Amino acid sequence: MNESFRRLFYPRSVTVVGASGNPLKMGHQCMLSLREIGFPGPVYPIHPQEREVLGIRAFPNLDQIPGEVDLAILVVPASEAILALEDCRRKGIQGAVVITAGFREIEDSKGEKLQKEMAAVAARGGIRIIGPNTFGMVNVHARLNASFTPIFSRLKPGSITVVSQSGGVSHLVAYQALDEGVGLGKVIGLGNRCNVDFADLLPYLADDPETRCIILFMEGQDEPRPLFRALKEITPRKPVVAMKAGKYAVSLKAAQSHTGSLAGRSEIYEAALRQAGAVVVQEPQELLDVAKILSMVTPSAGRNVAVMSFQAGPGILLTDEVARQGLTMAAFSSKTQGDLNRVLPPLTIRTNPVDMAFARNEEAFEETVRLILSDENVDALVIFLLHHPFMTPGRIKSPVLRQKQRSGKPVLICANSPRGLIEKEVEELEASGIPVYSFPDRTIRALAGLIRYGEVLRRTRGGAERMTR
Amino acid sequence: MNESFRRLFYPRSVTVVGASGNPLKMGHQCMLSLREIGFPGPVYPIHPQEREVLGIRAFPNLDQIPGEVDLAILVVPASEAILALEDCRRKGIQGAVVITAGFREIEDSKGEKLQKEMAAVAARGGIRIIGPNTFGMVNVHARLNASFTPIFSRLKPGSITVVSQSGGVSHLVAYQALDEGVGLGKVIGLGNRCNVDFADLLPYLADDPETRCIILFMEGQDEPRPLFRALKEITPRKPVVAMKAGKYAVSLKAAQSHTGSLAGRSEIYEAALRQAGAVVVQEPQELLDVAKILSMVTPSAGRNVAVMSFQAGPGILLTDEVARQGLTMAAFSSKTQGDLNRVLPPLTIRTNPVDMAFARNEEAFEETVRLILSDENVDALVIFLLHHPFMTPGRIKSPVLRQKQRSGKPVLICANSPRGLIEKEVEELEASGIPVYSFPDRTIRALAGLIRYGEVLRRTRGGAERMTR
Repeated sequence: MNESFRRLFYPRSVTVVGASGNPLKMGHQCMLSLREIGFPGPVYPIHPQEREVLGIRAFPNLDQIPGEVDLAILVVPASEAILALEDCRRKGIQGAVVITAGFREIEDSKGEKLQKEMAAVAARGGIRIIGPNTFGMVNVHARLNASFTPIFSRLKPGSITVVSQSGGVSHLVAYQALDEGVGLGKVIGLGNRCNVDFADLLPYLADDPETRCIILFMEGQDEPRPLFRALKEITPRKPVVAMKAGKYAVSLKAAQSHTGSLAGRSEIYEAALRQAGAVVVQEPQELLDVAKILSMVTPSAGRNVAVMSFQAGPGILLTDEVARQGLTMAAFSSKTQGDLNRVLPPLTIRTNPVDMAFARNEEAFEETVRLILSDENVDALVIFLLHHPFMTPGRIKSPVLRQKQRSGKPVLICANSPRGLIEKEVEELEASGIPVYSFPDRTIRALAGLIRYGEVLRRTRGGAERMTR
Repeated sequence: MNESFRRLFYPRSVTVVGASGNPLKMGHQCMLSLREIGFPGPVYPIHPQEREVLGIRAFPNLDQIPGEVDLAILVVPASEAILALEDCRRKGIQGAVVITAGFREIEDSKGEKLQKEMAAVAARGGIRIIGPNTFGMVNVHARLNASFTPIFSRLKPGSITVVSQSGGVSHLVAYQALDEGVGLGKVIGLGNRCNVDFADLLPYLADDPETRCIILFMEGQDEPRPLFRALKEITPRKPVVAMKAGKYAVSLKAAQSHTGSLAGRSEIYEAALRQAGAVVVQEPQELLDVAKILSMVTPSAGRNVAVMSFQAGPGILLTDEVARQGLTMAAFSSKTQGDLNRVLPPLTIRTNPVDMAFARNEEAFEETVRLILSDENVDALVIFLLHHPFMTPGRIKSPVLRQKQRSGKPVLICANSPRGLIEKEVEELEASGIPVYSFPDRTIRALAGLIRYGEVLRRTRGGAERMTR
């Protein structure tokens, strides 16, 4: 099974059925996507009349393609999709991305019927289908942009894979990744899930060396148990950050119509997702924020957070969010507190959150970080700073990195700045394993995700250890 | 009283006591701030030895300054601050921004004593003091950057005034304004509030023609009643978006220490703020998000929201947030629903949230907007779109604007895009009174703020009308 997914995500050659030279057509955007990402294998546009599309030799049909084809991208009208898939089957193509919409998601019962026909053809040909009714998928590492969104070609390679029932939410996450320089592995829009659903993909992603952390966005499932089983298998090995849309009665109706599946009661879903070891979040930005830290930092399970801040107000906001997320502000040991009182002047708050406003020399700063991280009552440290001519995140990189490595505890930086001033420094910090976020709430929610996953590991691995003892 | 604030915020001349040519000194940054914003009046740096600072003629003391001075910025050590203020009094200066820290906020009781001395000198000289222990203040319209943060000189003029107990949070808001192109009027860091507190400023801002909406960030007040009274006076005339930090027991201690005031019980504070007509928010980004819409859009009090989306998933997220914010998804009248069913194909959700994925021609789009806004069950409309080669916010500007003007109802756009692609179009939409936000949650929270302020107006004005009848 993994082999068929491998061919789907790492095809040696791709055909675009419905390729077009008209920039207003999806089939044109799909061609641009492949060109802009620089897909390394041959691309075969299929067009009934044109001899070439975007300067690439076109074929009137799949039979005319000289070589083997691993992946077909279908951007034809719904009425032609079944025939196109039949052609794929005849050509021996075993992977398809069906962008075409008008299947199970539409009001008209014709849609449901068409999707069943599609599933039957796929079954006969052993064809894995992403979609229908999807924006497509991207595998950054394979330089494959099999989507109608050319700008995804600019994504940085990384170890976070996005699997989403919603194309819109895939875009929210991937656009955020573009803006924030977060690398992604694969971005997969499941659409109507003709024969590839979460439960099918998770076992493949569990073994995928290019996926270290998974973002999962769902609206609803007709039969959710296979998903929960697959999650339970994967979460002790790889973290899954999950979000369920359609939380309220009024949203449920919309979710049901959208991809033609029952949205179900959200509380039950979320409880089951958590039970299966997923880290459940509530807002789309949190998906990437939590996945980023999980892809970078070894989780620790302790909930005791220390906060250092160069500005008191944001230190209080961080403290508020620590409480809101059900984490704990660490109580320093009396030894740590005594040492801090020696290092820091009596002009400032020296308990947690520690106000660093008056400790602007580097030695005092590093000693404070060292003392806090050495305290066994502290599980993680968050440092807040504002960009200012006197202070940028790069300035604290070396001391923070030294003390983080010494202690092995997670350190996060919340660095707020106008755009265009600290991006390079942030990139360097993150390359060193120190995640950086812009706002207090986002920082603490990311940390809460890390801690919750640490608790999943402790629970599941602890359980496994007990069983083998 | 307003006259003394006017001179403080619109000084004809400024002196910087503690000006410095050394870029590592705050007194240098303050000089840069004035230069970069292009303060139009004379600037007099005070320096004991230097003949000039940043190429501007310096004076050894205030007495040597030839002309009158309206505003003094003090960036001297705490031990010298009282003497410097005495000098101001002798020179007849009646406005001061005291950036110097080390007063009431410090652990040492010397600080409290110093602040009392400062208040006494100020009282004798009739000097209004912003601070001490503040980053300063900015009046964008007067081209006055009296702060240690030169980058604030880039702020766009606007009608939102920020008054904050926390310099850090002032920066969070102003940096966000810089990034998102939101104009600000004044940014005022109250610091330790020696003799200028919220309650003193609000009556001035109520009459300030350059302030249409106020952002108020507080940690705590020793005596909050004057603030609540002042709020009650201003909120029927101008909206105030308020946030209170230190919400949890663990945060309270930090807030108390910070600016030397009691943080108090947050639930009580928030209830009292709401009672006084403020729109209370929970996260720093919401301050500007809500203020932006309040400075642009006439509030309506109805809670019935319609959502149109080109992507179903984000439409569901918007619906979730509508429910979470205690708003209502509008139920279309049967006439509207019938008309929508004629305009939109049966391929899509035509109830609220309306899925526009298959209605990509402009006439059908505008007709849908018209039908929804004409429905008396609809109080406001939110439209979601993702940037794509086929769709940018600019493309829907004209139809949305026409129908918005026809109906008079608020229309918000949630447009998500990688950076650098839609900023110009967003600016044009906002210039036309259509606020644009990037994420579903932020969009609906902004709308909720608008609606809550509409309810304040209905309550207070309704009350006033009843009394005069």
